[in-house]
Amino acid sequence: MHVFVAVMKTPLIDNLQYCNWSRSIFEQMREGGVDAVHVTIVYHESFREMVLQLEAWNRWFETCGDLIMRGTTAQDVTRAMETGRTAIFFGFQNPSPIEDDIGLIEICHQLGVRFMQLTYNNQSLLATGCYEDEDTGLTRFGKQAIAEMNRVGLVVDMSHSADRSTLEAIDHSTRPIAITHANPAWWHAAKRNKSHEVLSALTSAGGMLGFSIYPHHLSGGPACTLQSFCQMIAEAASKYGAEHLGIGTDLCQDQPDSVVEWMRVGRWSKVIDYGEGSATDAGFPPMPTWFKDNRDFDNIRQGLLATGMTTGEVNGIMGANWHRFYADAFGPA
Amino acid sequence: MHVFVAVMKTPLIDNLQYCNWSRSIFEQMREGGVDAVHVTIVYHESFREMVLQLEAWNRWFETCGDLIMRGTTAQDVTRAMETGRTAIFFGFQNPSPIEDDIGLIEICHQLGVRFMQLTYNNQSLLATGCYEDEDTGLTRFGKQAIAEMNRVGLVVDMSHSADRSTLEAIDHSTRPIAITHANPAWWHAAKRNKSHEVLSALTSAGGMLGFSIYPHHLSGGPACTLQSFCQMIAEAASKYGAEHLGIGTDLCQDQPDSVVEWMRVGRWSKVIDYGEGSATDAGFPPMPTWFKDNRDFDNIRQGLLATGMTTGEVNGIMGANWHRFYADAFGPA
Repeated sequence: MHVFVAVMKTPLIDNLQYCNWSRSIFEQMREGGVDAVHVTIVYHESFREMVLQLEAWNRWFETCGDLIMRGTTAQDVTRAMETGRTAIFFGFQNPSPIEDDIGLIEICHQLGVRFMQLTYNNQSLLATGCYEDEDTGLTRFGKQAIAEMNRVGLVVDMSHSADRSTLEAIDHSTRPIAITHANPAWWHAAKRNKSHEVLSALTSAGGMLGFSIYPHHLSGGPACTLQSFCQMIAEAASKYGAEHLGIGTDLCQDQPDSVVEWMRVGRWSKVIDYGEGSATDAGFPPMPTWFKDNRDFDNIRQGLLATGMTTGEVNGIMGANWHRFYADAFGPA
Repeated sequence: MHVFVAVMKTPLIDNLQYCNWSRSIFEQMREGGVDAVHVTIVYHESFREMVLQLEAWNRWFETCGDLIMRGTTAQDVTRAMETGRTAIFFGFQNPSPIEDDIGLIEICHQLGVRFMQLTYNNQSLLATGCYEDEDTGLTRFGKQAIAEMNRVGLVVDMSHSADRSTLEAIDHSTRPIAITHANPAWWHAAKRNKSHEVLSALTSAGGMLGFSIYPHHLSGGPACTLQSFCQMIAEAASKYGAEHLGIGTDLCQDQPDSVVEWMRVGRWSKVIDYGEGSATDAGFPPMPTWFKDNRDFDNIRQGLLATGMTTGEVNGIMGANWHRFYADAFGPA
C-alpha cells in the first residue's frame, strides 16, 4: 500500500501593496514567486468610485489572467499556486466606501473585499486615525460596523488608526483583527508605527501584524539595512510569537507623487498635509536597496533565516501565517 | 452489491416574480413547494439605487434564512431543495443599473444578478422596447453589452422588448437568451405578448420562454380559465418543443398600485402612462382564481397534465427546463 502525500511549497504572501498596476508588475510578482497580494483599492473614494476600481481590476483579470487571479478565499491562494498565478485580494484603507450605510459592508464583501481600515489617519465615522490630536475610540457606528464585519468576514485593519481606537477594536471584535502594514514603535518611533501595548493586545487576541517596508516606517528610512529590519522581526517574534507575524510591504511601485498627495489629503483639505513626509521631502521616498519590487522577497527570507529563526517560523512570516489567517477570517462567522 | 440511486424531486421554478416581499410570502413559497424564484429587483433604478435593493435582499436572507437563500448557480437550486428553502435569483427589468458603463455588467454579475432585460417598454441605451413606435434594433452599446453579458453569464431577457430588437438579440447573442414572462400573441394579442416569428427564433436558438399569468397577458384577462392557459402551453410545446418552456408568473402580490405606476413611468414622464391598463383600469389587475399566490402551482401542474402532455414534459415546464438553462447560462462562457 502506498501513501501519497502532497508536498506543497509554503505560500509567499504580501499583505499590502498599492502599485501603479501594470502587466510588468504582475510579471515581477511571478518572477518573485509571490502567490498572493492584498492590494489597496481605495483611500478616500465613495462606494460608487470604489466600484470603478473593481471594474479596473476586472479588466486586469481579463487581460492578465495568465499572471493573476481574483482571490476571495484562502483556497484561492492554493489555486493560484497550482496554476502559477498570483491571487489578488482587495482592501480599503478607509471606510469611505461604506459611507453611512451598514448594509454596504456585506455588499463590499460580496464584491470580494476582504480588509477594511476603520480609519485612514483622520477621524472617520467609525474610529480615530493616528494623526488626530484626540482619540475618542470607537464611535456608535464603529461598534455596529465591527459586528457586521465580524458577521460577514471582512477583516478589521487598524494600520492607520490611533492607539485607543485600535485597542477598543481588538476588544470589541469577536474575531482576530489585523494591522496589515506597520512596524513596532520600539524599533522606530513614528506616528504610524505601533506601541508595544497595541501589538501585545493584537497578537494575544489572535491578530496579525504585517511588517511594512515603506521607508517612513523604517529605522533609518531608506538607508535601513536588511539586517536591522530582520533583527526587528526576530525580536517581535520573541515578544509576540512568530505565528502572528507576516509581511505587508506597502510597496507603492511606479506611482507618481500626485498619488501620495491623494493619499494624504484626498478631498478633505485644500491645504497640503505632508503626512510622514515634509515640505522638503514631499514625494514617495526611495525604497531600500534590498527591496525594490516583487522580485526581492528572497532577500527578506534569507535575512530572516540569518537571524537564527527556524525555517518553519520564517515560512510562517513569509506567507503561511497570512494564509492561515485568510482561512479563518474571510468566511461568515 | 447494492446500487444506490439518488431520486430527487423535479425542481419547481418560477422565473419571474415582483412581490411586496414579506416573511408571509416566503412561507407561501415553502407551502407551495417552490424551489427557486427569479425576482425582479429593479425597474428604473440607477446602479447605486439597485445596490440598496441588494442590501434589502441581504437583510431578507439574514432574517428569513430558514425559508430562503441567495441563489447564483443551478447548484443553489439543488441546495435549496436539500435544505427545504427557496433559492432567490436576481434580475433587472431594465438595463438602467449598468448606466452607460459596460464594466458594470460584470460587477452586477459578481453581485449575483443573473437576468437583465435590454429594455423595459421604452427605448433604452441598448435596444427598443415594445411600446415605442419605431424599433431600430440593437444599438452600438447594445451589441457590446450582449457580448459582455455572454462572457460573464448574465442572461439577456427580452420580455419587454420590441420584435426587431428581440430577433437581433437572439441572433447577436452567442448564448441562448430568455423571454422570462410573456405569452404567445397567437393566443392573446397584446403588445407584451410575442409573435410566432420571435418565439420560433428564440426556441430554435436554445432560448427559453416563461409563461406569464399577469392578467393583461392572458386571453380573457383575469377571467382566463386554467384550461385555456394550459391548452395554450400544450400548443406552444407542440410548436416550439416543451423543453424550451417554463413558468414566469409575473406575480406582483401585495403591491400597492403606486408600484405599477413606478413600473410604467419611473422618472421618464410627468404624465401618467397606463401601459397595458387604462384610465378606468389603472391599478394591478386581479389574478385569476386558479393562481393567487405561490401555493397554487399545483393547479398549473394538474392543468398541464390534463392536456395530455407527458409527466416528463410537465416536469420540464414546471422547473426542470429552467434548472437546465441556469446550469448552462449563469457561468462564464
